[in-house]
Amino acid sequence: MKLVTIDDIDAAARRIASDIVRTPLLAARWGDPDRPLWLKPENLQPIGAFKIRGAFNALGRLDPDVRARGVVAYSSGNHAQAVAYAAAAYGVAAHIVMPEDTPAIKVQATRDHGAQVVLCAAGQRETFAAELVQRTGGVLVPPFDHPDVIAGQGTIGLEIAQDLADVAAVLVPISGGGLASGVGTAIRALCPQAKIFGVEPELAADTAESLAAGHRVDWPVAQRNRTIADGLRATPSELTFAHLQRVLDDVITVTEDEIRSAVRELVHRAHLVAEPSGAVALAGYRKAATPQGPTAVIVSGGNIDVPLLREILSDDQ
Amino acid sequence: MKLVTIDDIDAAARRIASDIVRTPLLAARWGDPDRPLWLKPENLQPIGAFKIRGAFNALGRLDPDVRARGVVAYSSGNHAQAVAYAAAAYGVAAHIVMPEDTPAIKVQATRDHGAQVVLCAAGQRETFAAELVQRTGGVLVPPFDHPDVIAGQGTIGLEIAQDLADVAAVLVPISGGGLASGVGTAIRALCPQAKIFGVEPELAADTAESLAAGHRVDWPVAQRNRTIADGLRATPSELTFAHLQRVLDDVITVTEDEIRSAVRELVHRAHLVAEPSGAVALAGYRKAATPQGPTAVIVSGGNIDVPLLREILSDDQ
Repeated sequence: MKLVTIDDIDAAARRIASDIVRTPLLAARWGDPDRPLWLKPENLQPIGAFKIRGAFNALGRLDPDVRARGVVAYSSGNHAQAVAYAAAAYGVAAHIVMPEDTPAIKVQATRDHGAQVVLCAAGQRETFAAELVQRTGGVLVPPFDHPDVIAGQGTIGLEIAQDLADVAAVLVPISGGGLASGVGTAIRALCPQAKIFGVEPELAADTAESLAAGHRVDWPVAQRNRTIADGLRATPSELTFAHLQRVLDDVITVTEDEIRSAVRELVHRAHLVAEPSGAVALAGYRKAATPQGPTAVIVSGGNIDVPLLREILSDDQ
Repeated sequence: MKLVTIDDIDAAARRIASDIVRTPLLAARWGDPDRPLWLKPENLQPIGAFKIRGAFNALGRLDPDVRARGVVAYSSGNHAQAVAYAAAAYGVAAHIVMPEDTPAIKVQATRDHGAQVVLCAAGQRETFAAELVQRTGGVLVPPFDHPDVIAGQGTIGLEIAQDLADVAAVLVPISGGGLASGVGTAIRALCPQAKIFGVEPELAADTAESLAAGHRVDWPVAQRNRTIADGLRATPSELTFAHLQRVLDDVITVTEDEIRSAVRELVHRAHLVAEPSGAVALAGYRKAATPQGPTAVIVSGGNIDVPLLREILSDDQ
């Protein structure tokens, strides 16, 4: 299996430079003195999440004649908005398949980018998407299982290496594994001294179990869906799992309370609104004895509904 | 009266470059189509507010022998933390005078930077600070009434000009006027096509009245203190007022409800936590028919207590 390389990530960075926010690495002075904390706020991207990097790289890599036929994606979350946004920027059509129980606000946000949303029954997303690809001639942009998507997400690792060359540890959320695969590949290449930690909810800790077993272990979707971190309910593909086996030093698992606490900490101390999935890496930093030295934590997204945010902020009353 | 120049601001930018976050200008795609909205998130600075720019420039300009005697400041808010933080970075002592009714959390935050906090009765801050200067030999760093502080805040305008050369309008909160003086000076010099708007709460609209009158009009402090925007209760000095008369095209005043609504909009759409004072410029953008074209709105700070944030987020239930 051909893995993504640092050259792929370098090329992706040049390709997407004018489309994304070059997020600053923020010194979070309230971190542990032995492990100075740096935050990479990907919640500041235009659609509120890192997914836009992979989407722009995937669309940018297409032959213009092929891209003109439009793109297709399936997602109930940030990938839907990312592909819709990137398609609009390229002036091509986007068909997005979403489960029919997707909150109306997320369907509307995707439509607001000009995408055609197709609702389907739970578990039917991939079938519907395949049918749309057939019918429209569009190209499928998968949420993580593609080298161009992985390379796009990897540009975050490139930027961390540029801004914090002596980084000792990098903490990345894991779901389908595209982000951790890309970031891990960049950091391995540019900062070989750094340890790379995936972080996932205990309630969706299939990757921790899979890496320990040496092969992918399937957790039923109903089980993974228990976590509040709704962006971390996917499971790695063969492609991303192969990357994770190669680039991760360890996986940290965190409880639901630890995730909620990290959301509060980001609001209170960093003035950043993170969705639960976007706060798990900070939860991992708080939980585990990662190596001493500068530590980069990726805040991967900020798309949280206000009622949930309000509820989480009330936890510590 | 000698006003701050673009050269002063250029020099300040070089002086403080390694001490501050070079904040990105964030495209806020949900703005008015005729007035594309860009946010300058100064709430991401280390102490959560733009004040750190002026503080670092003021300390950096001091002769090292003089600076070694330490610094003195009076403030109940972000300036206190900014001076304490900058003094710690320079390894010099800081004495900060704060009113005795300052919330304990803000006193503690200032002490956490290593500053000596001196509490005083309301209205006694300047007297206490003068006494401390005498006793310690330290240098007073005023919150806005100083060319070095104005030049430091002006670096925000420089960065806006670098990132958005064709900016049509810039909206800046006004309190003591240091931020608006500096930003306005930079924008006037570098983007002469742009209109510059100060924004202030209706409940502390002394600057709007003063500019209309052509001279400073004093609003009693009890009157200014009514606004929720606790960072905007100061009033311009002769120095800042002279700048404001020269650089502002107009002042927009906003209601308390409009300020609260802007705080919610920043959480919901931009994933940023702003304090009420930090959200007034967005409130001004929402209220007034500013010119068509790219519009930069400064989100000046994020230091809001969680209970107040929770309350504001509940307004729209």
